[in-house]
Amino acid sequence: MKKLLNTPEGLVDDALRGFAAAHPDLVTVHFEPRHIVRADAPVRGKVGLVSGGGSGHEPLHGGFVGRGMLDAACPGAIFTSPTPDQILAATRAVDGGAGVLQIVKNYTGDVLNFEMAAELAGAEGIEVAAVITDDDVAVQDSLYTAGRRGVGVTVLVEKICGAAAEGGRALDEVAAIGRRVNGQGRSMGLALTPCVVPQAGRPTFELADDEMEIGIGIHGEPGRRRAKLGTAAEIAELLATPILDDLPFRAGDEVLAFVNGMGGTPLIELYVIYHELARICAGRGLRIVRNLIGPYITALEMAGCSITLLRLDDELIRLWDAPVETAALRWGS
Amino acid sequence: MKKLLNTPEGLVDDALRGFAAAHPDLVTVHFEPRHIVRADAPVRGKVGLVSGGGSGHEPLHGGFVGRGMLDAACPGAIFTSPTPDQILAATRAVDGGAGVLQIVKNYTGDVLNFEMAAELAGAEGIEVAAVITDDDVAVQDSLYTAGRRGVGVTVLVEKICGAAAEGGRALDEVAAIGRRVNGQGRSMGLALTPCVVPQAGRPTFELADDEMEIGIGIHGEPGRRRAKLGTAAEIAELLATPILDDLPFRAGDEVLAFVNGMGGTPLIELYVIYHELARICAGRGLRIVRNLIGPYITALEMAGCSITLLRLDDELIRLWDAPVETAALRWGS
Repeated sequence: MKKLLNTPEGLVDDALRGFAAAHPDLVTVHFEPRHIVRADAPVRGKVGLVSGGGSGHEPLHGGFVGRGMLDAACPGAIFTSPTPDQILAATRAVDGGAGVLQIVKNYTGDVLNFEMAAELAGAEGIEVAAVITDDDVAVQDSLYTAGRRGVGVTVLVEKICGAAAEGGRALDEVAAIGRRVNGQGRSMGLALTPCVVPQAGRPTFELADDEMEIGIGIHGEPGRRRAKLGTAAEIAELLATPILDDLPFRAGDEVLAFVNGMGGTPLIELYVIYHELARICAGRGLRIVRNLIGPYITALEMAGCSITLLRLDDELIRLWDAPVETAALRWGS
Repeated sequence: MKKLLNTPEGLVDDALRGFAAAHPDLVTVHFEPRHIVRADAPVRGKVGLVSGGGSGHEPLHGGFVGRGMLDAACPGAIFTSPTPDQILAATRAVDGGAGVLQIVKNYTGDVLNFEMAAELAGAEGIEVAAVITDDDVAVQDSLYTAGRRGVGVTVLVEKICGAAAEGGRALDEVAAIGRRVNGQGRSMGLALTPCVVPQAGRPTFELADDEMEIGIGIHGEPGRRRAKLGTAAEIAELLATPILDDLPFRAGDEVLAFVNGMGGTPLIELYVIYHELARICAGRGLRIVRNLIGPYITALEMAGCSITLLRLDDELIRLWDAPVETAALRWGS
């Protein structure tokens, strides 16, 4: 296991200490229980957005806390759901009187713990709604999931709901927008190498030198199948076709195309995949009108990528373009 | 070799096609000869900034082309200097009548080819100046370098000179600012794993499972020594001490701290290193007033990191904070 860390047990807290030291203008980091809160929280009258999940997917979710995106993130242990007390503490910290929206990736532990926190917060008089993301077309049910897994679309839901909340929309409206984004978004991923959970110390799975795992989950959960390593054109086709056929996306659709790195894949390769994806979309008559390319939802040092396509409309484009100021996404004034 | 690509020979052009497709609002990409130019170039009356170097270090340099940073970037083949005709074409494309500044990492081939292009441009009546970066304290002379190698500080020179040029400063002033940044910045890197140059198909060097290479170059050039893999605290100390002692940095200095990922190292580990670096700087009485954390100057999929420290003053802080709008760095309005 070759990693830049002090101890496997201390990895998450050491990284959070670094995050707190680097971004005091954006966030405040609490350790007992662990939650990252927007520096100016709670924002009076604004819907508060809370997400979270296992650590090891950075910049998700802590890197998306800030103006125009999340109000709080709850980092669990590596690949482990955050606990209800973390989520409850975050919910209290960001409640500005307009209710709190949870954005939850569809993994059984995450869903249960967010639900429990919502009940506890409700008992304290905080109105809570939830959006569950389940955009991964690779498999139905998985190691940690009933139904489809929540992956790349989560980043897009957080950005777009963040803009809606910042714009003063009410809790039920922000939740409806989040569900629309999840409903119009689809993803699929692929691994060239496994990753190593530090406390386990060994790879999450084995892959031969000439193999890739198609439909991989962000915790190394099994995908659809293994295959011989293909070209970028073949890989883009293997990922894009199930996505395009699932919604289905149709000629004339305007889409956001998100090519995500899994953590160990360099940017130059992601742009090769983007080139192939753009070709495939053009061939189907889709217009890519926005894009995002980089490592935004990762699986430690796994090599590989995922593709997410989101069907856009004018409102979603406007919300995507709205200013955002977080550690990992930053644009606008 | 496990990479997302079609053919080793086509990697750079395929990635550039993806880059062109993704960012038409920011850049125009030319292929014969290869150069990436700011979409609105040439900007009348503004000093044009041209950089370039071997590919495989993305987002350097193409990811830094745009308002407030570079006017053009010349991507060579993987780890190979751009040719004089690329640099000359870029120089012509960005000449807005106020001269052109070359930002060149100190590698023998790069320096020679930029010099040759400067001569050719000069013969056409374009005034050209150059800033050579040589911030790597690891070794004196190296596989491709006489003197010190240019590494992380290059990103900071490009940002800060970009702001100065955008602010209307004259060629000699922008060049002087660039030299000041290089003079006040120091870097050192470390590898946990080698990388594979696609056309070679084998690792640039070998490292045992429990070894790291201290003082690595961004093309896998040998560093100072190999050592048993250490903790993040030890690694940060190994990199920071030679940097701090070299300038030297002194108690009371205000610095920008840049923790750079080499391409295969995930963000969570970079924040652990940042935490340790912040502790070390505090122990020496340095104040980190700005930071940059992420993979900005990479070596394909190499795992590892580098640290750069830059001594700041009020002018450099103002230029660092100025708006920038590129594919890889974006802030301000």
